[in-house]
Amino acid sequence: MGYLKFKITSQDNKARTGELKLRHGTIQTPELMPVATKATVKALSADELIEMGAQLLICNTYHLMLQPGADVIQKLGGLHKFMNWNRPLLTDSGGFQAFSLGLGLEHVTGKYFPEEGKITKKPEKSTVKITDRALYFRSIYDNSHKSLSPELSIKIQEMLGADMILVLDECTSPISGKKYVAESLERTHKWALRCIKVHKTDQALVGIVQGGHWQDLRKKSAEFIASQPFDSFAIGGSLGRSKKDMHNILEWTVPLLKDKPIHLLGIGVVEDLFEAVERGIDLFDCVSPTRMARAGYAYVSPPLGNVKNKFKYKLKSAAFAHDSKPIDKNCSCKICQNYSRAYINHLFKANELLAYTLLSYHNTVFFVNLMKDIREAITKVKLTALKKRWLK
Amino acid sequence: MGYLKFKITSQDNKARTGELKLRHGTIQTPELMPVATKATVKALSADELIEMGAQLLICNTYHLMLQPGADVIQKLGGLHKFMNWNRPLLTDSGGFQAFSLGLGLEHVTGKYFPEEGKITKKPEKSTVKITDRALYFRSIYDNSHKSLSPELSIKIQEMLGADMILVLDECTSPISGKKYVAESLERTHKWALRCIKVHKTDQALVGIVQGGHWQDLRKKSAEFIASQPFDSFAIGGSLGRSKKDMHNILEWTVPLLKDKPIHLLGIGVVEDLFEAVERGIDLFDCVSPTRMARAGYAYVSPPLGNVKNKFKYKLKSAAFAHDSKPIDKNCSCKICQNYSRAYINHLFKANELLAYTLLSYHNTVFFVNLMKDIREAITKVKLTALKKRWLK
Repeated sequence: MGYLKFKITSQDNKARTGELKLRHGTIQTPELMPVATKATVKALSADELIEMGAQLLICNTYHLMLQPGADVIQKLGGLHKFMNWNRPLLTDSGGFQAFSLGLGLEHVTGKYFPEEGKITKKPEKSTVKITDRALYFRSIYDNSHKSLSPELSIKIQEMLGADMILVLDECTSPISGKKYVAESLERTHKWALRCIKVHKTDQALVGIVQGGHWQDLRKKSAEFIASQPFDSFAIGGSLGRSKKDMHNILEWTVPLLKDKPIHLLGIGVVEDLFEAVERGIDLFDCVSPTRMARAGYAYVSPPLGNVKNKFKYKLKSAAFAHDSKPIDKNCSCKICQNYSRAYINHLFKANELLAYTLLSYHNTVFFVNLMKDIREAITKVKLTALKKRWLK
Repeated sequence: MGYLKFKITSQDNKARTGELKLRHGTIQTPELMPVATKATVKALSADELIEMGAQLLICNTYHLMLQPGADVIQKLGGLHKFMNWNRPLLTDSGGFQAFSLGLGLEHVTGKYFPEEGKITKKPEKSTVKITDRALYFRSIYDNSHKSLSPELSIKIQEMLGADMILVLDECTSPISGKKYVAESLERTHKWALRCIKVHKTDQALVGIVQGGHWQDLRKKSAEFIASQPFDSFAIGGSLGRSKKDMHNILEWTVPLLKDKPIHLLGIGVVEDLFEAVERGIDLFDCVSPTRMARAGYAYVSPPLGNVKNKFKYKLKSAAFAHDSKPIDKNCSCKICQNYSRAYINHLFKANELLAYTLLSYHNTVFFVNLMKDIREAITKVKLTALKKRWLK
């Protein structure tokens, strides 16, 4: 359909490394792409992302269609030129944002069931209406009425001009019942066909597998999506109520998706990356590196980082105000080579913007390097050993 | 006294270029140093400052002594190491901050009389008490009682470890009466002697000329300060009620300050830079490049920039939302080479942190390049022509 070439270059059980060739260059997989929601990875410049070896980014159709508008970005030469990023780019379809503002609010949940059943926020009324025709919602910017149909999502993504674009889907929550998820899946599949029908450019088109945490629905969806002429696949929506649910979903679906690149949408927890790569996933995206940085949390590798502390600590805590050590003594990034914890702690305390840049840089490098190590381990058929070293 | 070597390398009337050798390197003058108040130039990394050619920075003793504390910075290896800046650094003495929180609040003014006599803020009560012994004030961080004496200012600046340190002085306002300024000047001179007496390191010590806008007081001060063994001089305090007052102050004082480097404190308006360089000033510092950036204003060179628009325009205004042009088509900085006005405008509208970084970068380059052009013009004895091109 679109321009995409994918070559599997090595395998370690079901884990694989690959070369993914897109219009703006070739990237090595598996890879986690930094998220550039509003056409910028928060607090980082394109120069910094290139310097650290980021290979591709994902932008957000929902936000960009509302502000500054796809027409504006198209007139300015497209998203790559607009944001000064000459490497591969993805755009999502807007489906997940509709979820966030719909079921996500009502069910007070994201892709997982809230941890340990704790729900800290109150349910809010959905601001999204979904029909077979389209998603109807209010703009978060000016509260105006907006809609997003499969046709419009593709049109907008063509105007933005990313290398890979995603079909419009409906995301369900871990709390949605099976009946609703089955109905929703029918709609998602019809929308996938409508996206294929209107897609005109050589942008690679990505089909999305839905179906919640039910085996029959996930398999049905994977078979259907795999039967269509998509360039690539993504696994989206609710990943169930436990890690086990997520692992099952991957085991049911990945074998049906053949040898095209497979993207597990919105996942970026260290353990999940290992588990998903082991089950054949090639692409990830996650806001955590920069979001955690803005909250003052630093990612760290073993032995300081471990499953229990989720590979991070609160660098902005007063405990680090006099600490002359780098963020992570095992990290070779320029932040760890040049700055102390005490300095970054001082910048947070002083509300200095540089705090966000320095910590976002380190946290993003953390994942760039982790994925590089994972690729190298697969090449050497040593992924199990790497996983053990990290997750022990 | 301290380590400082200054060689005048060319002259164009009273304007001069020089080589200023300090402990952390040699810089070319005249130069305007970016301000790193709390040990960071706001929104810019050390890498970015080096990339653009910034030669030296000035940090703020008042802020750093209160947070994180001079002892903390000393234990972490000093200010250079703390902020990852291996080029020359200055620290001010804390005197100007005491003014800002004292007479500055009462008289609702800065170094100049408020423009066109307009006073928009209400006078506030001074939070500073000044005696011959010391300045007494409340910390802006925790409201605790603090004091700063000449001895303590020097001690703190020695702990911080900048290449050049300033004596503690009392700043008066353009509204202060001559009697008060004369009394204050006596105190400032006594404080200068006390600073010399306790100064122990090889940091270059800078004497400050005060005296408001009175010829006899300014001359008296310049003669007194020039008679002391300072490594360098600064002209501080109120620069009067008009541009003419400032020009007079420079003409009265600079000839008395011999061939040591002379710093005009806190000045960074384009016209003022030309006027001051023409009168023999070697060093400047000003927060405007980054402060204006955070307010969404871009500095631009002629013909777009001129005296009337103060060489800037409001880039975050909606007028630039669709503008594909760079910030300044005559600018060779990497921001102007790679980003459109529309993109930066979008970043401001979206409250993205990158907005501040990109515009602070351009605005700081603007002054780095202006000063480079000024130095080159002096070398070629063409400063008058350059000034005409800018200020016509």
